[in-house]
Amino acid sequence: MEKRIYLDHAATTPLDNEVLEAMLPYLSQKFGNPSSLHSFGREAHDAIEDSRKKVADLIGAKEKEIIFTSGGTESDNLAIRGVAYLNKDKIKEEGPHIITSSIEHPAVLETCRDLEKEGFKVKYLKVDRYGFIDLEELKETISKGTFLITIMFANNEIGTIQDIEKIGKIAKDSGIIFHTDAVQAVGKLDIDVRRLNIDMLSISAHKIYGPKGVGALFVREGIRLKSIQTGGGHERGLRSGTENVPGIVGLGEACRLAKERMNEDTLHMTKLRDKLIKGVIENIEESYLNGHPEKRLPNNAHFRFTAVEGESLVLSLDQKGIAASTGSACSSKKLQASHVLLAIGLSPVEAHGSLRLTLGRENTEEEIDYVLDVLPDVVKRLREISPLWRKK
Amino acid sequence: MEKRIYLDHAATTPLDNEVLEAMLPYLSQKFGNPSSLHSFGREAHDAIEDSRKKVADLIGAKEKEIIFTSGGTESDNLAIRGVAYLNKDKIKEEGPHIITSSIEHPAVLETCRDLEKEGFKVKYLKVDRYGFIDLEELKETISKGTFLITIMFANNEIGTIQDIEKIGKIAKDSGIIFHTDAVQAVGKLDIDVRRLNIDMLSISAHKIYGPKGVGALFVREGIRLKSIQTGGGHERGLRSGTENVPGIVGLGEACRLAKERMNEDTLHMTKLRDKLIKGVIENIEESYLNGHPEKRLPNNAHFRFTAVEGESLVLSLDQKGIAASTGSACSSKKLQASHVLLAIGLSPVEAHGSLRLTLGRENTEEEIDYVLDVLPDVVKRLREISPLWRKK
Repeated sequence: MEKRIYLDHAATTPLDNEVLEAMLPYLSQKFGNPSSLHSFGREAHDAIEDSRKKVADLIGAKEKEIIFTSGGTESDNLAIRGVAYLNKDKIKEEGPHIITSSIEHPAVLETCRDLEKEGFKVKYLKVDRYGFIDLEELKETISKGTFLITIMFANNEIGTIQDIEKIGKIAKDSGIIFHTDAVQAVGKLDIDVRRLNIDMLSISAHKIYGPKGVGALFVREGIRLKSIQTGGGHERGLRSGTENVPGIVGLGEACRLAKERMNEDTLHMTKLRDKLIKGVIENIEESYLNGHPEKRLPNNAHFRFTAVEGESLVLSLDQKGIAASTGSACSSKKLQASHVLLAIGLSPVEAHGSLRLTLGRENTEEEIDYVLDVLPDVVKRLREISPLWRKK
Repeated sequence: MEKRIYLDHAATTPLDNEVLEAMLPYLSQKFGNPSSLHSFGREAHDAIEDSRKKVADLIGAKEKEIIFTSGGTESDNLAIRGVAYLNKDKIKEEGPHIITSSIEHPAVLETCRDLEKEGFKVKYLKVDRYGFIDLEELKETISKGTFLITIMFANNEIGTIQDIEKIGKIAKDSGIIFHTDAVQAVGKLDIDVRRLNIDMLSISAHKIYGPKGVGALFVREGIRLKSIQTGGGHERGLRSGTENVPGIVGLGEACRLAKERMNEDTLHMTKLRDKLIKGVIENIEESYLNGHPEKRLPNNAHFRFTAVEGESLVLSLDQKGIAASTGSACSSKKLQASHVLLAIGLSPVEAHGSLRLTLGRENTEEEIDYVLDVLPDVVKRLREISPLWRKK
């Protein structure tokens, strides 16, 4: 395969060269355990604290409010379980104890479902056709037993950006902890945890040109969590286990770069995204954009095509050198209709006809031209063999 | 600082060059998410499965019995919590529900203590002066409610190797699951999980010249666990979260190398270790070896010196370019006497006079000569300023 165009940045991003350069010393001579007292240990310790500052700087947090984890999924688990397990006594109280949405990432949804088995009551808020929760419904849902609201910042499939500031305000006014899975939003949107009333926020390095296997959880000063991974007491006792030093250095550098490049990257990706959306909608009949036309991630284009099977589309595009997705990578092998697309009101058949193209800072206009050149024909050929397509 | 001699391999090891070489493609062009359907995803997926085979091969397991985690601490947590949470109904039965030892790593000890808060009963077996549990006591401790025995393979501080095969046999004969934290033993001792009757075994990559932030748990076919990190259902639903592809590739390569080099490395380290022990005991008065003289890890030398403070010793050696430790890196900053040394019968004062030197495959005889040249003088000078040292 000659040409390879990567348009699946919501699944994972390439490691930025500057990030790799920053990591390499910690993958070779600077290999110490940060807990060790000798010079190898001290240089590893200092590197972690330097990264903590870079992560904090990106989201307006204090250094001591950043806990390093193994990724977004662990961050979500630590936030949700960590608060829930300290509120076990509230199980007796009127629910819902946790309020979330029906379009969360599985790391949040499955964790909530797991907690339901332990006796917690969870409310999964419905969303409208664009993927927005109803703020009035959120207010009305809050009860005496509610101790956590967890609503994702921007959806990983359709790219819809919630009104996080208002959700945070509602939580704050009710004295309820507000967590947001910001894995897709960090590095693309300007996030200030204090302005937005966020108490806890999940970050994943590999979604922002950093390495896989590392993430962070912002935990506002004063909020207590129960650790879910016990041991040597690392990360102020909240997350035990020898720190992934090269990974953490990579996350820090990725955050520094994200802050430096955010305006430029956003402008670049928004331009390509809008060209892509316009080109697809105008040139392919019965093609539709999922999610909101404006309140969406700058790098997200999510389509559905009548009478086309998304998976066939992804495989056909792959043969043309284009890496795309039907939706979440996590569930791409499960062959179930996306819970997000069903939640915004699509039928299972419509949901199965979806294609997600997510851009990155390295994509070029020529690549988008190539996609716009190839995609109409691919859709056409798939429709020709589709029993659902009424020939015209 | 010119000379730097690293003798703290129990805390962490340098990344082997071959491991780094194997990882680099997955830190650059091969960056796909293993769950993605396109070519980037497939090559990442294949790399993970290739690594799974290498890890399985090192310990005589089947590929499907290997679960990748973020490290030894997570592996221990998943093994212990994973079994405990499926046995919650047994809380009502006569305990102990879990049997462990008093010299386990904090990842096991603190997890057991945490489970005690949830109602589980845990027996912490005493050890003799060498650190061995009493197999007869183990047998007698088993009760109707016992569902898990977790005993470490080799101790991280004093290097003592338990009789794992017999412990496994006792567990097997009683129908109890046997987990072992083998973080220090893997790659140094010949481990066959079937011959040794092991049901679950924890591995950490960064202790065997692999990268930090990745590990594995062997889970024998047929054993059920409750997942402690929920989400997209990765690793057969046992460990959700996008796989740390470069880390997993590094772990696989580290395991392959460990298997290939084990005999050579063991011979080399044993020779250096014995030279070191002999040299210290013969040349420094009132110096003693902690742990068993023979049944110890090939790379572990653990001493205590009358009237010397271990931490001062580590800092003095650091100034001479020698990286050493008082004991576990995890607890090195806590200034408490080691629970392991107290458990083998040392007084707190004796425990505080300890020094751990742990060798690696890259250490040379010249380095040991240098240590033997420097250490007696360092001990002498520290004793001169020690109020505990009776001048002779």
